Parts: sequence; structure tokens; C-alpha cells
Amino acid sequence: MSDTARPLPMTVPDPSLPARVRIHEVGPRDGLQNEKTVVPTEVKAEFVHRLADAGLDTVEATSFVHPKWVPQLADAEQLMPLLADVPARLPVLVPNRRGLDRALALGVREIAVFGSATEAFARANLNRTVDESLEMFAPVVAAAREAGVRVRGYLSMCFGDPWEGAVPVAQVVRVARRLLDLGCDELSLGDTIGVATPGHVTALLTELGEAEVPAARLAVHFHDTYGQALANTLAALRYGVTTVDASAGGLGGCPYARSATGNLATEDLVWMLDGLGIHTGVDLGRLTATSVWMASRLGRPSPSRTVRALSHQEP
Amino acid sequence: MSDTARPLPMTVPDPSLPARVRIHEVGPRDGLQNEKTVVPTEVKAEFVHRLADAGLDTVEATSFVHPKWVPQLADAEQLMPLLADVPARLPVLVPNRRGLDRALALGVREIAVFGSATEAFARANLNRTVDESLEMFAPVVAAAREAGVRVRGYLSMCFGDPWEGAVPVAQVVRVARRLLDLGCDELSLGDTIGVATPGHVTALLTELGEAEVPAARLAVHFHDTYGQALANTLAALRYGVTTVDASAGGLGGCPYARSATGNLATEDLVWMLDGLGIHTGVDLGRLTATSVWMASRLGRPSPSRTVRALSHQEP
Repeated sequence: MSDTARPLPMTVPDPSLPARVRIHEVGPRDGLQNEKTVVPTEVKAEFVHRLADAGLDTVEATSFVHPKWVPQLADAEQLMPLLADVPARLPVLVPNRRGLDRALALGVREIAVFGSATEAFARANLNRTVDESLEMFAPVVAAAREAGVRVRGYLSMCFGDPWEGAVPVAQVVRVARRLLDLGCDELSLGDTIGVATPGHVTALLTELGEAEVPAARLAVHFHDTYGQALANTLAALRYGVTTVDASAGGLGGCPYARSATGNLATEDLVWMLDGLGIHTGVDLGRLTATSVWMASRLGRPSPSRTVRALSHQEP
Repeated sequence: MSDTARPLPMTVPDPSLPARVRIHEVGPRDGLQNEKTVVPTEVKAEFVHRLADAGLDTVEATSFVHPKWVPQLADAEQLMPLLADVPARLPVLVPNRRGLDRALALGVREIAVFGSATEAFARANLNRTVDESLEMFAPVVAAAREAGVRVRGYLSMCFGDPWEGAVPVAQVVRVARRLLDLGCDELSLGDTIGVATPGHVTALLTELGEAEVPAARLAVHFHDTYGQALANTLAALRYGVTTVDASAGGLGGCPYARSATGNLATEDLVWMLDGLGIHTGVDLGRLTATSVWMASRLGRPSPSRTVRALSHQEP
């Protein structure tokens, strides 16, 4: 493109959509937790710094799950001090009281717990029933709030489950309502295996609204397994959701669910939001450069279409 | 997934969207015209047969452009007789009067001409100005209609152009209006370099509506270069468009525009439409099997996320 060409994407707002969206960047945690490559702590720290420099104001940094389960993030204690000067919110995943205590000792100000909308996934991921997992989270959430720490609740398998198939909306609403009643400030609705479509998204958000869960307390977390993540995001924005989870370069997936590859790439999301004139604060060029750098560290190309197009990587 | 699991995607209609969509399958023409591999005529014929067997009722079969420009489709005369028993509409691309005569001699009932919304692409693709290209098409369209042949007009670079950058909506409307006035029955709006976003799509469709171009005469043709194709399709469906171009397995691109890789994959589109309960007549399993078969003929995996997930191809 010549220097005088009109810039792309052309910005054409849609007045029915929100004016601002907060991107909850999950690459360093949800992305890296499934990597076979051991990423050095210093590289993780540089990744988080670069993401914040690109304008992301919320970067999920790591996990305090037991290292036996997620060895890729076993260096949380070493990583967090390297992030002390990062000008962004840095939530961390915490599974239980022991994890919370480790996080609090490092000065963490935001945590996330990880629930399931289905019994099959609660069993596979947490070795508990849904009710038992909520009982496990209750004292963690209470203690976090007592310490003035913000709590996000992840709710996975909100649209489909590899064992149970399609997940009824009412079942998701029931667990969502209970996570919020425990004291979660925000709920992230996860399409862990990427099977959602836009009407299903709207139906779930509508039933949550009828159960007095306002859009302002919700985030959406779509996977691009079937290429649906951005269309689903558009449906959620139209409903009024203003927090969207995404992973720089499309890193990540879920280790416990077959085919659950492919978080929505932050770059693909930012391209759409830039085109819609929706403010995110993110610089797409700097973000893409960060994902290209990270891809070179991991030794494989980014699956993000925007990263590939902007960096002229071969698919 | 177990045999008793509820099937995916779960079907949740959105009453603001159309009940039916016609998919205009472009894989055999737009997909194969950029392949470096020479695909044997018999394989092309089997591809078209398989696509029709999967339920696609419109399959763009080949091109009557001079073989010097598109050698991959130089076998149009040999291919068409092999498709005589295909139970689908089989439009072909025709650039000029000579191409039309070749097509008519083979009994073709539907043709497409290929225009540009920008001067730069008209120059690159047709070696003409926009006005000169319209003058070239005029007698072709007139002769086709006189022969009772249906005419589709492709309009490329409707959202952005690699040389001119963002393309003003009014400029697209002007050329669109003229193609329809020439006698085109249908107009396919092409995002040849994949830069469109949903607000831009809605704005173009709205201005076309104001210029008395009804949604019923429009098709949309999105490329997935930046991952936006399905979100843009959703915006077009919401406006009332009911014809969507797609390419089985995501085959194809544009040889004259850098980065213009990646037609919207028919499978990713069908997954969304199935989830929305929008009738297409397409069997997703048979279509995916066709794309896996074609990928094996071409010697590289399909870029379609749905094909990869359903066939468990590695990305």
C-alpha cells in the first residue's frame, strides 16, 4: 500500500455497539499453560511488559495452580516480582486457599477462579462435582474479598462440552448465578471447545439478564476452533457486553478438552474493534510485533490471521 | 463425544436473521484458479459432483478467461461436458464476448462478469479504467440476457484496495448501480483483500439500499485475510442479504492482490448457519469430507478451522 493510501481498516462505527471495550488479555496464562516448550521466566516477563506497552490494560499474568498440574507456569513466584513496574492490571489464576495465600504474599490485587458449567468437565478438570467445586471456591472468594482483592469467575463449557454435547442455557445460568452469589465481581463465559454460534450467545446473555446478571458484570471468552469466535463476539457486543477475553497471537487452548485449540486472537479482535471505531487503547502494530516476537520464541507461527497478514507470514 | 451427547452446534435461531441462505460455492473456480498444482480435469469434475452431493445448489464451475491469464482453468471446454448431470446451478466466469460464445456453445445457463470498484484494481486486473471495463461488459451482459442466461456481476475491492487503501462507500455504490443498470441480475460485493469490518458492511449495504439496490439482488463475498469474514457475513445477514459466497475448505484468493488469501470457508459458514437454524440444504459432514479429499489432492491441509476441527487435522 502506498503512503498516501487511506488507512485500513476504514473506521465505520455501528451506533448499536458499545463505544469502548476492555480486552482481558489471557496470552501469558491461558496461552502459555499449554505450550510444550518451556518458556523462560524472563521471556514471560518481557511478554507481559510488551503487551502492556501495546496498550493492553488487563493482562492475566500466570497461575497459582499446583505445578504438578500446570508445570509451564510453575515459576509464578519468580515471575510476579519481575512485573512490579507493569502499568496494567495483572490478575492471576488461583484454584484454592493455598494458591490464594501464595498470590497474596506476592501482592496480587486480582485473582480468578475456574468453574465449570458441566459435571463432566468439573470432574475432568477439578475432580469434583459442580457443587463441590463451588464449595471449594467459596472460602477462596471470601478471603480474597476480605483482602480487598478483585475476583473474576471463569465459567467454562458454557455452550458445549466434549462429553455432554450441547449445554442447556438454564444449566449455565444456574452455575453463573451461584458464582456471582459467592462474591465474584465479574464472570467470564467460556466457550471452551469453540462450538457456540451467535444466536446461542444472545440466548445465554438474555437468560442471564433475566436472572439479574447485568452485561456489565460479564466477559466473553470464545475459542476459534470452528472459526466462530469473532462472530460470537459481535453478538455479545450487540447485547451490551464490554469485556472480551482474547489471547495475543491466538496462543493457547485447553489441555483437558480435545479440539479445544485456538483462543480468539487479540489481533483479530482489535482489527474488528478498530474498524468499528470502538476504543480499546491497543496499538495493533505493536501488539502484532509482540506476537511475532513470541512466535519466534515458541518456534512456530501464530495462528492469528491478522498477525499472518500484517507480518506476511506464510499460513 | 459420546453417541448420546446432544449434537453440536446447538441450534438457537435469531429471529432478526433470514430463515434461508443460498450459498454460492466458488471453490472450483475462485479456489482452484490460484493453485500452483495442476488439478486434472477429472478431479475438478469429481469436486463439483461432490459439492452438489453435499447439498450446494450453486457451484461456480470454471472460467472462460483466456488460458494465458488463468492456465489453471484452461480446461473449461473439457470440464463442462463432465458436469452435464450435476443437479446444481453451474455459473461460469466470462470476461468478454469471446468467452461468452465459448460458454454458450457448451450450454451454460449462468455467467458472471468481474468488475472493480477501484481504478487501481481495474488497471491491474483488466488493464482498463472502471468506465472502460463497464463498456467492455455491456455487450456481453446484453447478449447473455438475450440468450436467456442469468448474469452475476462481481464487484471487487468494495472495502479496501492494496493501492488505494480504504474505498469510499459512495464510489462502490456508483459502480454497483452501473453494473445493475447494464442488466446484471445479481451483484456480489467482494472484499478482495479481507479488510472489511461489520460497521463498514452495514454502511455499504445501507447506501446501496438508498440507491435502490435491494438486498435480494446482492451477494456478499468476504475474504478471511484478517479473520473478519464470518463477523462481516453476520452483519450482512442482519441487513437482509440471503446469498453468501464461500469456498469449500477455504480454497483460493486473488492472484493480483498481495495478502488476498483466504476465501471464507464454506464449512465455517455452514457451522454458523446451522447453529442459527438458517436453512442452506448443505450437509456439513459430507462437505467437510469433500474438502479433506480435495486437500489430499492438493497436497496441503485446508485452512478452514471447521474442516481442521472436524477432521482433527493439525493446524
